[in-house]
Amino acid sequence: MERNHHLEFVTGLKCVFCGAVYSTRVPYTCPACGITGTLDVQYDYAAIAKRLTRQSLAKRHEYSHWRYRELLPIRRDAVLPALQVGWTPVTATPTLARAMGLKTLYLKDDGRNPSGSLKDRASSVGVVKAREKRQRIIACASTGNAASSLAAMAASLGLRSVIFVPERALEPKVTQLLIFGATVLRVLGSYEDAFQMCQRACERWGWYNRNSAINPYLVEGKKTVGLEICEQLDWKVPDWVAVSVGDGCTIAGVWKAFHEMKTLGLTAHTPKMLGVQAAGAAPVTTAYRSGEALKPIEPHTLADSIAVGVPRNWKKAVLAVLASRGTMINVEDEEILEAMRSAGRLAGIFAEPAGATAVAGVRRAVQEGIFGGNASVLAIVTGNGLKDIRGAQSAVAKPFDIPPDGAGLEDILKERGLNRG
Amino acid sequence: MERNHHLEFVTGLKCVFCGAVYSTRVPYTCPACGITGTLDVQYDYAAIAKRLTRQSLAKRHEYSHWRYRELLPIRRDAVLPALQVGWTPVTATPTLARAMGLKTLYLKDDGRNPSGSLKDRASSVGVVKAREKRQRIIACASTGNAASSLAAMAASLGLRSVIFVPERALEPKVTQLLIFGATVLRVLGSYEDAFQMCQRACERWGWYNRNSAINPYLVEGKKTVGLEICEQLDWKVPDWVAVSVGDGCTIAGVWKAFHEMKTLGLTAHTPKMLGVQAAGAAPVTTAYRSGEALKPIEPHTLADSIAVGVPRNWKKAVLAVLASRGTMINVEDEEILEAMRSAGRLAGIFAEPAGATAVAGVRRAVQEGIFGGNASVLAIVTGNGLKDIRGAQSAVAKPFDIPPDGAGLEDILKERGLNRG
Repeated sequence: MERNHHLEFVTGLKCVFCGAVYSTRVPYTCPACGITGTLDVQYDYAAIAKRLTRQSLAKRHEYSHWRYRELLPIRRDAVLPALQVGWTPVTATPTLARAMGLKTLYLKDDGRNPSGSLKDRASSVGVVKAREKRQRIIACASTGNAASSLAAMAASLGLRSVIFVPERALEPKVTQLLIFGATVLRVLGSYEDAFQMCQRACERWGWYNRNSAINPYLVEGKKTVGLEICEQLDWKVPDWVAVSVGDGCTIAGVWKAFHEMKTLGLTAHTPKMLGVQAAGAAPVTTAYRSGEALKPIEPHTLADSIAVGVPRNWKKAVLAVLASRGTMINVEDEEILEAMRSAGRLAGIFAEPAGATAVAGVRRAVQEGIFGGNASVLAIVTGNGLKDIRGAQSAVAKPFDIPPDGAGLEDILKERGLNRG
Repeated sequence: MERNHHLEFVTGLKCVFCGAVYSTRVPYTCPACGITGTLDVQYDYAAIAKRLTRQSLAKRHEYSHWRYRELLPIRRDAVLPALQVGWTPVTATPTLARAMGLKTLYLKDDGRNPSGSLKDRASSVGVVKAREKRQRIIACASTGNAASSLAAMAASLGLRSVIFVPERALEPKVTQLLIFGATVLRVLGSYEDAFQMCQRACERWGWYNRNSAINPYLVEGKKTVGLEICEQLDWKVPDWVAVSVGDGCTIAGVWKAFHEMKTLGLTAHTPKMLGVQAAGAAPVTTAYRSGEALKPIEPHTLADSIAVGVPRNWKKAVLAVLASRGTMINVEDEEILEAMRSAGRLAGIFAEPAGATAVAGVRRAVQEGIFGGNASVLAIVTGNGLKDIRGAQSAVAKPFDIPPDGAGLEDILKERGLNRG
């Protein structure tokens, strides 16, 4: 295997379907298997272990996900977006933990990324790769967060972005794309229609393709959320890490991170992964439970970012959960809304529905006895609640209307126990 | 003056109106002057200078605004909110700078704070003080950002919050309050009505009062944005710092920070302050230009966070601008929308209208020759664009609708120069 000297620690790209290993000159999927042959970036962990130690990391002042450059498929001389991506806070939430019957619950708030979601990690790697390949236009099909993150990162690096969105894309998410200067093409059809049109357009016009079902590099960006968790918790990994699952790519990336950290000897063990799907869009859980191939479904959930009927990375997700000796569960939309309320009220963190899904999954897992109250648990909040105000509105009551003379105020305060300081 | 041993470096509270100095036992405003007598926290800078050096700061691993504890009016043993506040990124934006005819433009993106605005800095200090005074309920009147930040910080510290909002408060901002578990009272009247009702309620029910016109500690939180700018730019302060002005409290806080940094010998000089108001809500600029007292106006601007007709800290704002040898200017709403587009498209930063106002002011200042192209300029983006999607919608065009067969796609791409990779 010829080592690519520019990608110092990358040894090749391995097809997750047939196992063949290729050089990084292969642009997207396995030449033998076609679109089902997602490629996985392989590294020389022995070499990385010499450079990436607890001590060397403690001395780095790069507080973004680029602090793990050795574990990312980018060149040493890569031009990086100016926006600060990653190194989002891990917050201990004792009050929320107690309310759920847990001793220890952390939230990793990836809604604090530049465009408000975890997808910024993937898109930032995508634009760096596009620029490395001297492409000036990068495209994707997305219902929202992947697109807005791509548009933001492209803007930050001086690239142009073309985004294909399905008809049902939420207005606020489309507005964010337009602000970032993306050319937004609303395909009057399903997500599948938008995806197919994007594929054809990338081929025809030679744009760089950011779709994470195709592009091997994006999941490498996503995994940084897991790398950070290890370091931010001072190398004591939680017993369980909960992640919401839509396409399946994120949980696979997070698992890869924990596996890498253990391989490098930086952590002593790996967490169990709790994959959480919305009950109305749970084909991955179904495949996980049945042990059979994925059956596409028609998704119905308010958590639009994980409303995926044909998840392209389902197999990687199932394998990650199995390898971690974790499990998958589903939560109803009402549980997601309750998780939004409790994360807001008890921890001060505003999650979008898909972001709160992991929190809802933790509560459900406690109730079902999947783990006991003594387990240490971390839930990844994948997106900011401000991205979907309409979703949040269905979670909360209305404010109280008071006339300027204050009539009725005292009764409301008494009822809520607020009539003393 | 008796030193409060718990507030190690605070020497007293000085009335900005009459100049009298009080101990920190005085809760809100000057006992002699009443509500017009805002109190300013005084510090023992000689003592602080011994502790706060470039070297000692470089060794601190607290990447939040609490890293400047010596310059904050909080006890050493204070319980702090778990949410990470401050240390928001300063981003160099060469493309945006060029588009404006500038060599150097930085954006400090305070939309990256936990609840999405600079107000988190003030509210985090507010809840710490409330808890120090053993109060369990904290209240404020606000059109939006101050309120949502208070609700988030109260949730994070286990306090309850009561928020009085005016009738015109934007729905998304109210939703955010409710998610954080605040009791939201919509006063069917103006901001002034809401403010007055909040004042009376705090007195009657003994709640802690977060209104920054009254509470001397909140502006101390706001100033941390300026402290961070000095350190993040490696102690080379820009020639100009642009800040949008509503109530006047923020620019006064930012100026206090730069003044303190120079007093401590950490920086060699101070920047000129550019105060920017929306033309439809510009009573502070009018007062600054006329040299006369503020005349209340009826505000009309899409930048709701700075739509203040009766700014309570106008005098502090004018004094700050004068002391810095800066100036104040106004921008039209159309210029604010243009600044939202260009910050998004050329820097990947999505600002709410009030947040983009400082950027619009920089462009206007270049056009008017207030500073030359060689000046180094920093604009503070005070709030996240996701907070006001409706505002953003008026800034952008619509997406292109494409049928699933792709008809019309090629023409759109050609027109936009996207038909080659």
